[in-house]
Amino acid sequence: MSIAELGRIRARLAARPRPADLAARRERLDGLGAEYALPPDVTVERVVARAVPAEWTGTAAADPARVLLFLHGGGYMAGSLASHRHVVARAGREAGARTLALAYRLAPEHPFPAALEDALAGYRFLLDQGFAPERIALAGESAGGGLAIATVLSLREAGLPPPRCLWLSSPWVDLTLAGGTLASKAALDPLLSRAYLAELVAAYLAGADPRSALVSPLDGDLAGLPPMLIQVGSAEVLLDDALRLAAAAGVADVPVTLRVWPHMIHAWHLFHPELEEGRASLSEAGSFIRSHLDGAGPP
Amino acid sequence: MSIAELGRIRARLAARPRPADLAARRERLDGLGAEYALPPDVTVERVVARAVPAEWTGTAAADPARVLLFLHGGGYMAGSLASHRHVVARAGREAGARTLALAYRLAPEHPFPAALEDALAGYRFLLDQGFAPERIALAGESAGGGLAIATVLSLREAGLPPPRCLWLSSPWVDLTLAGGTLASKAALDPLLSRAYLAELVAAYLAGADPRSALVSPLDGDLAGLPPMLIQVGSAEVLLDDALRLAAAAGVADVPVTLRVWPHMIHAWHLFHPELEEGRASLSEAGSFIRSHLDGAGPP
Repeated sequence: MSIAELGRIRARLAARPRPADLAARRERLDGLGAEYALPPDVTVERVVARAVPAEWTGTAAADPARVLLFLHGGGYMAGSLASHRHVVARAGREAGARTLALAYRLAPEHPFPAALEDALAGYRFLLDQGFAPERIALAGESAGGGLAIATVLSLREAGLPPPRCLWLSSPWVDLTLAGGTLASKAALDPLLSRAYLAELVAAYLAGADPRSALVSPLDGDLAGLPPMLIQVGSAEVLLDDALRLAAAAGVADVPVTLRVWPHMIHAWHLFHPELEEGRASLSEAGSFIRSHLDGAGPP
Repeated sequence: MSIAELGRIRARLAARPRPADLAARRERLDGLGAEYALPPDVTVERVVARAVPAEWTGTAAADPARVLLFLHGGGYMAGSLASHRHVVARAGREAGARTLALAYRLAPEHPFPAALEDALAGYRFLLDQGFAPERIALAGESAGGGLAIATVLSLREAGLPPPRCLWLSSPWVDLTLAGGTLASKAALDPLLSRAYLAELVAAYLAGADPRSALVSPLDGDLAGLPPMLIQVGSAEVLLDDALRLAAAAGVADVPVTLRVWPHMIHAWHLFHPELEEGRASLSEAGSFIRSHLDGAGPP
């Protein structure tokens, strides 16, 4: 493991704690992404996906028939195209696919179900564009991971075909905050805490039931979901969200691959330009997506 | 999924239920292995590994410096070199390694810790032969999976170096029988039941504490264990053993890969010559082992 790399990242996070002001928080996360320049061969194209601001990225090597639809993290209150552009672009390169990242609406201005509506709009936009569902991978990080599962549950409800596979990194899938690692990993997690998550829950739900499967898909009917790769760090308060999701999906006959990355912190992929495990995790995700979009993936 | 293939296997198992007589039970499992001929390029060599009957298999393509040490399943009361020879040989081929399978002593004639002593003897035999620990993968199926973890815990206790990685298929790691799927998957599992497992526990423990980490490593201190691949079917009463092992190891900072194979039955690798998912699972295990013995495996 790259202990020195991780130590530098931890030190930087500790030196710049999350501000209380919402606008400053959003700027902080966007600024994190802005630190990392994109490789020169990546093209970026802004687009509006059924009224949702979005962005294509791709390289010449990407198969134009394949797409990775990406839902960023940020607790439903922050995160943007800017914060995760470098992650999405690298994941697309590893997957051999174009990517479409969505700037779904954020709380508290737009509480549940605004983000879910936008994620569904983004998926429908891809169908409008002629993408075959079996050539679409749906991905989400943190809150975006929960949103990705809620999207698939909603697609099923709407009678629409699901994406070919799901890639979930550090997913947040229990807004009732019942995970055991919320306490046991609290001292190790430099980004999230129970108090902060409770604040996010209040803003996103604005009174809606945290037990709804569309915000806490951990309790939803997961049968029939597509193959999913779940990646999580062992130094996260949300570790137990990932573990319980893997268990619930596995019991429901979903093809599950769970990868626990020792000592990694929440959403460590964000730091991949300076963290070996970030790059290795994106490579793993790319291989998973590639094999499934090939049609050659394991069941 | 190969529904037809799985259906044929289920029908055959239903037509030949497990006998009550111990000798007949052992013959039944050995006979299962005997149904499958080895490919002609596999060499088989009997050996005695520090007093434990054992068997090398290999092909010309296997790296002679790499070895897969295999602990068969059979509930600590059955299973042998014969029952799993075809599984071990194929796993070794996929891993690019020679294999050493151990005929560890069985209960009730030899209760705990006889099997563990023999597994340790097998590992020490490999060290005697000059194998580097980082070129040894330790594998176990079902009871052999629990035994494999107990072996690593015992090696740590003895101050000996661990194997490079662990491959556990359908592992049985909780002899207190507390898993939730013992009930919820009972109707789907053609091989195991709570009553049968309780019988195995009584025979293997012969009065020892089922909560000991050396028989229920789920409750042991798993920190420092090598990277592990856990494979489990979703139609197993032992599904929850695998899920809880993945969780406990992940929380303890162990590099965990959990793969839930939908609809697969306990120890489905046994049927791989006639089951596509058996072959795919062995290929997955081989890739995992190969990447770790290469030194190129993910952390």
